[in-house]
Amino acid sequence: MSGTIGIIGGMGPMATCDLFRKIIENTKAEKDQDHIHVVIDSNTNVPDRTEAILRGGPSPVGEIVKSARFLETMHPDVLLLPCNTSHYYYDEIVSQIHTPLLHMPRLAVGYMKKKGYRRAGLLATEGTIKSGVYTKLLEDAGIAAVVPSDAEQKEVTSLIYDGIKANNADFDTANVKQVLARMRDAGAETMLLGCTELSVAFQMFDLGSDYVDPQTVVAREAIRLVNGAAMNETVRI
Amino acid sequence: MSGTIGIIGGMGPMATCDLFRKIIENTKAEKDQDHIHVVIDSNTNVPDRTEAILRGGPSPVGEIVKSARFLETMHPDVLLLPCNTSHYYYDEIVSQIHTPLLHMPRLAVGYMKKKGYRRAGLLATEGTIKSGVYTKLLEDAGIAAVVPSDAEQKEVTSLIYDGIKANNADFDTANVKQVLARMRDAGAETMLLGCTELSVAFQMFDLGSDYVDPQTVVAREAIRLVNGAAMNETVRI
Repeated sequence: MSGTIGIIGGMGPMATCDLFRKIIENTKAEKDQDHIHVVIDSNTNVPDRTEAILRGGPSPVGEIVKSARFLETMHPDVLLLPCNTSHYYYDEIVSQIHTPLLHMPRLAVGYMKKKGYRRAGLLATEGTIKSGVYTKLLEDAGIAAVVPSDAEQKEVTSLIYDGIKANNADFDTANVKQVLARMRDAGAETMLLGCTELSVAFQMFDLGSDYVDPQTVVAREAIRLVNGAAMNETVRI
Repeated sequence: MSGTIGIIGGMGPMATCDLFRKIIENTKAEKDQDHIHVVIDSNTNVPDRTEAILRGGPSPVGEIVKSARFLETMHPDVLLLPCNTSHYYYDEIVSQIHTPLLHMPRLAVGYMKKKGYRRAGLLATEGTIKSGVYTKLLEDAGIAAVVPSDAEQKEVTSLIYDGIKANNADFDTANVKQVLARMRDAGAETMLLGCTELSVAFQMFDLGSDYVDPQTVVAREAIRLVNGAAMNETVRI
């Protein structure tokens, strides 16, 4: 019998669902009982993270810790937080919980370094970009970040909020595609999907296959850490 | 603020993920905080239900109740059980829990009756078919069931176990497509997907659009019951 993974979710719900699916698909399993026990709190009471970081909105930490404590009653081996922006509060969160919380941005950048990337487009919420969660990690890893201009960031933000979070499958991606083309022209070898909604968006809207998805990196790391669960090596990272 | 939905999952994990996604997609939401709070236990320690019903394997009830009690610590308004076969044990489960558990097969057949179906193909595990979970409900609703022959059932079982539960995106669906064609020739106006893995399979392998998916029916009923959550009326049932 393998261990248990806990997911502190709801930021947003579709990204939580996407991480859950990636854990299932990346596990080598022949039957239900080969899969890893996963407990999820899709807690939609967590306040908006970008609002908190940039504009002094209510802190998300209280609700995140509440979810973690609920999940901890099932004694998970690791906890995952499928929201890049929330990792701004990583130290504050881990000081209040008892289970190892995997740091998704660190794992993602570590993976990119190992793969030898030198220059990557950074796509994320304004909160993640301005807070420097990813830019500092990329710099330390010797990877140059191609960051959207302020006007371009508005298009990325719109894709995240008006496209995915608002459940709009008809969202017009023409402007975002122009932003991606400009970043590729600026030498981005890959796109770092620094917001979990973008993992969903790249699949839903077919925005290209030159990306690194931190959700997949963290899913595979969690599977690796939890005893007895074999990896499915046929799935794309 | 709306209420909370609890999902007793893991039977199988992909069907659990599929129900979670359907709750998100069927909710009218503009932002994370408009979505319903969902707690999930994808408990892969639950023994195989068909084995238990047909061949005296260990009962799944103990693990199902254990999951329900964990979820109940979050005070959900309703619990869902995304596994049709497990509803064989419905009375035994509800006698040991305190939260209303929606009965997916009853809701699905009620929906079919309201839609005016008179003759439906029944696709399910051997356990669900032999236990009569659906056949009795269909009979009471005046809907004739077109059931696979023993040889045909083997193809349906293989799709469920070797296709979906084993995570095999390359599963060959030629034989299953023949079974579906035969059932349509026998007058089935629609296919009742009486196994949650088939909800996943019909989408993954493009097996036709003439189906009723109990997972969608139960997702929409749960959203309706939980206060304050509006329905997204643009999604296909």
